[in-house]
Amino acid sequence: MSNVEVTYDNIEASRVNGTAVYNTDGESLGHIDDLVIGKRDGKVKFAIMSFGGFLGIGEEYHPLPWEVLKYDERQGGYVVGLTRSQLEGAPRYGREALPTWSDAAAGRRINDYYGVAPYI
Amino acid sequence: MSNVEVTYDNIEASRVNGTAVYNTDGESLGHIDDLVIGKRDGKVKFAIMSFGGFLGIGEEYHPLPWEVLKYDERQGGYVVGLTRSQLEGAPRYGREALPTWSDAAAGRRINDYYGVAPYI
Repeated sequence: MSNVEVTYDNIEASRVNGTAVYNTDGESLGHIDDLVIGKRDGKVKFAIMSFGGFLGIGEEYHPLPWEVLKYDERQGGYVVGLTRSQLEGAPRYGREALPTWSDAAAGRRINDYYGVAPYI
Repeated sequence: MSNVEVTYDNIEASRVNGTAVYNTDGESLGHIDDLVIGKRDGKVKFAIMSFGGFLGIGEEYHPLPWEVLKYDERQGGYVVGLTRSQLEGAPRYGREALPTWSDAAAGRRINDYYGVAPYI
């Protein structure tokens, strides 16, 4: 049993919001604002990371494919192998302009940018 | 491409909250209040359904294994093959008493009740 229990690492989605995202140098890039999940398959497709901005003014949202995020217990946050300049060129949206997630083109564009498998 | 696009049925986790849950007779059982996801595997493990109560007074929360929920486009909600009496006997919690999701025993008890595969 005990070797099963150590993998029990679940969390309420509402509590993921606010989790920090770091690059591999340990710099804080932003925090997770929401998740995008498949209604049927129950898989997290994207984490929407807020990036930049100050007190919500000018804040931008980067949907990151779930596959690029690695949870790091020590830092208590997610780590992505991306530089700030890579993120600056990445698909991003203002608060009111996030894609509808049935929009295949938007999803594909995000996954293409990060070089992960096709969006489904 | 078009036969891929019809499967693009993703949604922000924050918008899943409030989605109705019906039984197979089309009766409303409650609505989804939160999701429980794996920090690492990015899979939805449970949907926390609120059930009963009135204006939040006396409301109870039933974590349902994701596998028992089927999304039904026509009803715009999830359908579970459970009767009200089955739900009344199911693991449920007050608002402040929900398990911590690293608690393997709680997860296992829920999955055992619904007869789904072991909680991981």
